[in-house]
Amino acid sequence: MAIAHLGHAELRVNNLEGSRRFFTESIGLFVTEETDDRIYLRAWQDWDHHTLVLTRAPGSGVDHVAWRVASPGDLEEYARDLKALGVEVEWLEGSVGHGDSLRFRSPASGIPLELYWEVEPYSCADPELVSQLPSHPQRFTGAGIAPRRFDHVNFLVDDVRAEQEWFSDALGIRHNYYVAGEDDLRLGSWLAKTNVSHEIALMRHRNQDGTHLHHVAFFLDSPDQLMRGATLLADAGYTIEWGPGQHGTSGAIFLYAFEPSGHRVEVWSGGMLLFAPDWQAVRWDRETGPLGMELWGSGMPETYLAYGTPVAEAALV
Amino acid sequence: MAIAHLGHAELRVNNLEGSRRFFTESIGLFVTEETDDRIYLRAWQDWDHHTLVLTRAPGSGVDHVAWRVASPGDLEEYARDLKALGVEVEWLEGSVGHGDSLRFRSPASGIPLELYWEVEPYSCADPELVSQLPSHPQRFTGAGIAPRRFDHVNFLVDDVRAEQEWFSDALGIRHNYYVAGEDDLRLGSWLAKTNVSHEIALMRHRNQDGTHLHHVAFFLDSPDQLMRGATLLADAGYTIEWGPGQHGTSGAIFLYAFEPSGHRVEVWSGGMLLFAPDWQAVRWDRETGPLGMELWGSGMPETYLAYGTPVAEAALV
Amino acid sequence: MAIAHLGHAELRVNNLEGSRRFFTESIGLFVTEETDDRIYLRAWQDWDHHTLVLTRAPGSGVDHVAWRVASPGDLEEYARDLKALGVEVEWLEGSVGHGDSLRFRSPASGIPLELYWEVEPYSCADPELVSQLPSHPQRFTGAGIAPRRFDHVNFLVDDVRAEQEWFSDALGIRHNYYVAGEDDLRLGSWLAKTNVSHEIALMRHRNQDGTHLHHVAFFLDSPDQLMRGATLLADAGYTIEWGPGQHGTSGAIFLYAFEPSGHRVEVWSGGMLLFAPDWQAVRWDRETGPLGMELWGSGMPETYLAYGTPVAEAALV
Amino acid sequence: MAIAHLGHAELRVNNLEGSRRFFTESIGLFVTEETDDRIYLRAWQDWDHHTLVLTRAPGSGVDHVAWRVASPGDLEEYARDLKALGVEVEWLEGSVGHGDSLRFRSPASGIPLELYWEVEPYSCADPELVSQLPSHPQRFTGAGIAPRRFDHVNFLVDDVRAEQEWFSDALGIRHNYYVAGEDDLRLGSWLAKTNVSHEIALMRHRNQDGTHLHHVAFFLDSPDQLMRGATLLADAGYTIEWGPGQHGTSGAIFLYAFEPSGHRVEVWSGGMLLFAPDWQAVRWDRETGPLGMELWGSGMPETYLAYGTPVAEAALV
Repeated sequence: MAIAHLGHAELRVNNLEGSRRFFTESIGLFVTEETDDRIYLRAWQDWDHHTLVLTRAPGSGVDHVAWRVASPGDLEEYARDLKALGVEVEWLEGSVGHGDSLRFRSPASGIPLELYWEVEPYSCADPELVSQLPSHPQRFTGAGIAPRRFDHVNFLVDDVRAEQEWFSDALGIRHNYYVAGEDDLRLGSWLAKTNVSHEIALMRHRNQDGTHLHHVAFFLDSPDQLMRGATLLADAGYTIEWGPGQHGTSGAIFLYAFEPSGHRVEVWSGGMLLFAPDWQAVRWDRETGPLGMELWGSGMPETYLAYGTPVAEAALV
Repeated sequence: MAIAHLGHAELRVNNLEGSRRFFTESIGLFVTEETDDRIYLRAWQDWDHHTLVLTRAPGSGVDHVAWRVASPGDLEEYARDLKALGVEVEWLEGSVGHGDSLRFRSPASGIPLELYWEVEPYSCADPELVSQLPSHPQRFTGAGIAPRRFDHVNFLVDDVRAEQEWFSDALGIRHNYYVAGEDDLRLGSWLAKTNVSHEIALMRHRNQDGTHLHHVAFFLDSPDQLMRGATLLADAGYTIEWGPGQHGTSGAIFLYAFEPSGHRVEVWSGGMLLFAPDWQAVRWDRETGPLGMELWGSGMPETYLAYGTPVAEAALV
Repeated sequence: MAIAHLGHAELRVNNLEGSRRFFTESIGLFVTEETDDRIYLRAWQDWDHHTLVLTRAPGSGVDHVAWRVASPGDLEEYARDLKALGVEVEWLEGSVGHGDSLRFRSPASGIPLELYWEVEPYSCADPELVSQLPSHPQRFTGAGIAPRRFDHVNFLVDDVRAEQEWFSDALGIRHNYYVAGEDDLRLGSWLAKTNVSHEIALMRHRNQDGTHLHHVAFFLDSPDQLMRGATLLADAGYTIEWGPGQHGTSGAIFLYAFEPSGHRVEVWSGGMLLFAPDWQAVRWDRETGPLGMELWGSGMPETYLAYGTPVAEAALV
Repeated sequence: MAIAHLGHAELRVNNLEGSRRFFTESIGLFVTEETDDRIYLRAWQDWDHHTLVLTRAPGSGVDHVAWRVASPGDLEEYARDLKALGVEVEWLEGSVGHGDSLRFRSPASGIPLELYWEVEPYSCADPELVSQLPSHPQRFTGAGIAPRRFDHVNFLVDDVRAEQEWFSDALGIRHNYYVAGEDDLRLGSWLAKTNVSHEIALMRHRNQDGTHLHHVAFFLDSPDQLMRGATLLADAGYTIEWGPGQHGTSGAIFLYAFEPSGHRVEVWSGGMLLFAPDWQAVRWDRETGPLGMELWGSGMPETYLAYGTPVAEAALV
């Protein structure tokens, strides 16, 4: 029983048309399928039906983030174990793009999670986008920022350590590095099941205002593409919050911007992979922490640890 | 009396629709104006009405390449001096995008040339493309390879030295570097009036088959964008002839591809600028010449010194 | 019982001084430790004592490639299972930089392999190289090509399919993609245990001349650094065999050069990671295979599938 | 009579050893010649003897910036004309690396200037650095940030408009773009004689504290090299003041850092060249000016318009 990897995120958006334009024209994602109220998107080399869902809603917020499990029987086992831990789990029958799934919230912070096994691979139906290359699920058109893949999610929470320990203990997500402040207060933790530096990050909400989505992130092949993306966003009139900068922790070169419904979106490149089976989480302390957050010295914006989009309350499903 | 800089090129194309698609979708040029038979194009930061014209014709070929002169009275002076040199000159009254011009052919090789002074600056009429930035004649959309500007032209000729000397003596275009073969035979020469490494290059036609356009070239901000462009062209099914490679001579990182009407097109990045007012042309000899052509060691394709598109015979104007 | 990841390679070199200079000055690796006859090297962010060993020998060849196992007891289990499969295994007591290890050769092709669990982390002893950054095992000096990490190995073998199946079945290394020729003849297979596209590749020796090391590879953060590296190698007088090009299969942008003892070395960047727990190996056939080998169209050099360095016969340990 | 191009700058430094280390190890300049008190430096493709001089002094400051004139007789003509304008000029006989020169200060702001014609080309004496490539004055070693060339200087002055007009009128340096504030107050002007966006910039000293050197700048071939440089500086413990960012005005991607004697140094890449012989200076107003200073939205540091190194008072020559 194991998690395999982060699969997708669903965001509720109060400006579906604006968000659609941002994610398709500027970020350069592709629409696999859409209804009046839901748009299923993926990056050009995402192999699955979708990695991002935008859902029309009165208020913006994160609906859930979904992880694929490692083998067919894992869903049942997780359901059993989570219940044993006192976690309320809900079964959903086959959703668009994937099979049955398990929905629940992390006990410490209430992060809305989903696990699934069956997945519908993306199949390119648009003749203009069909690629002759077996490793390209669709043509590389280079339109917009054109990330290669969906990469990770980041949440602001009130108690980072408790949340990290639950993810590591209950879900088996490896703790890769963290920032510790005064009196060892955990300011941030970065975790992954795969070899990437993090599939989910947890950062301390400066105002202790409850769990919020900090950002969803897409991966770029080069720092150069990130700077091209910054110019693209700026000339399209979007607000870049921070970057280009480099997180000293992971080596990731980052750029954060706000999309029209208020979600923070990151595109990033570079950084390290982690292979050691006995990896010990790297500690960044009060002295090195600021370089961990930004190695090149640009100041962290006021909004960065204080603003996020809330966890959606009522189910829309 | 002086040339200021290379301004534009007009190509006759036997597949106007194919060439339009190549230059707009894959190269990422923008159409300023078009008729049934002519398309006026420019790169996103080209300040003038156009830098490339595609003209429908039964056979592909180069119609002419045009240079802007340095001051209003220069056209008359060039007309007088060229006639004195026995060159047949033709006056054209105001063309699309620029004022009166002087047309003639270089005596040694018959390269079709145009000089003009008045020019119509590009003015963005498409609300989707208007940029708020005074240094952006239009928005940077990043669509296609998205070169910053039109850069240079290159011709295959039978006698490089004679042609270079005429350009330097009669038009005042500085000779920047050259490749010399056995018995000092001139294999290629690169010239510019501005500080770029070359606005026009002349290379010896391996088959001594008369003057041909070798390529038109567009400039990219980074080598990374060039590799992104290579993937973009490959996935769109176009044939890349050579590159990415680096011309040791100029330091230019290059990529050559064929567009649907048969013209060779280069996108390139990097390389040196030349500032010395007494610059002496750098000599590459038989030993260093191959590194001058390709520093990284990839072999020159058979077609490179043997294929070009012909000089258009009859006037279409 | 599982393999965790590829750990290091040991190369015998007939020109230790030349190879040392190539790997330290041009590639930009760092020496952890050295004796008169052995040099232990690593890339700047390699966390372990070494990832490459150069050993003085009369003839160049590959001594062995080593993989770390996933947990302490795995060595014993692999020893037992391999013996049960009829593989001759040898125990080595604690080597420089790691603990006890198991040495054996793959049955089909005789690739010399090593498994180990205990590893000595790199500890920076040079005050000039100590970094204040917890994620930098040493300072990033940018000297030479400066890859981030050791990445993979590639072997020429006579029977790719047999070798791939043994690696997948006996060692549990996932088969990620392959090229199939006429009559389904397996021309190449790429495998990994981690999420990278391959930690070991197997390609069919064109001359069916037995198992040879094709290359060892180091990873760069960007395609731009690879082109900088190409210029660096060219200006230092080394021979680049192929590249910059892009393997269509993995999306890797590559550069191959020969080091002074005759080994082929790759630096590369970009490409895909694979996360699906039920990944099916992607097939490249006769039509798409050439694009799989080089997407941008540069021809494969004659040497590429015909030259490698042999497997060292006698033990030097 | 004309200026040809910016040639070099001489900086007085109160920490010669620290500055030497910064410019050679981190920036990656090369020493052509040095005495106990003066170090002559150049970037790898600078063709002249030097482009930067560091001179030991009790206090850091700018000694002078030097321009090469366009032809041999120009020095005499400038001497005559400047005197006619009431400018005090001083003749220096042959300095290290160049011939006789004319020294004077701009009347409005007192920028210390030098004009010269004769120049000693760099000749590589170090066998380790000799390149076989005729376009490489020395080998490309890639050590440090490794800029291609010295590029421009920037001064803080109290009255930008007066200074710009003098440079344009008396020295013929083209005014390329400017930022205007409230009541049309000139906040900055960028000028060049060559096709680059600026060889000298003038910015309004926020505190109206007199003329100061703002920075000297070196050019990089790619934005990627700039980010590599940022990591290199950060890991070496230097303070980056601002960047990576993009000046919207020129399109330059920039990075500013302080060297150990207190001078601000820029490395940059990209941006536009200007070719029009009748170029009209582009105006950035109060609304667009901030994007002109930084297109991607990072805030300008407090120090940026308030800190510079002073103009050296007493001659050291």
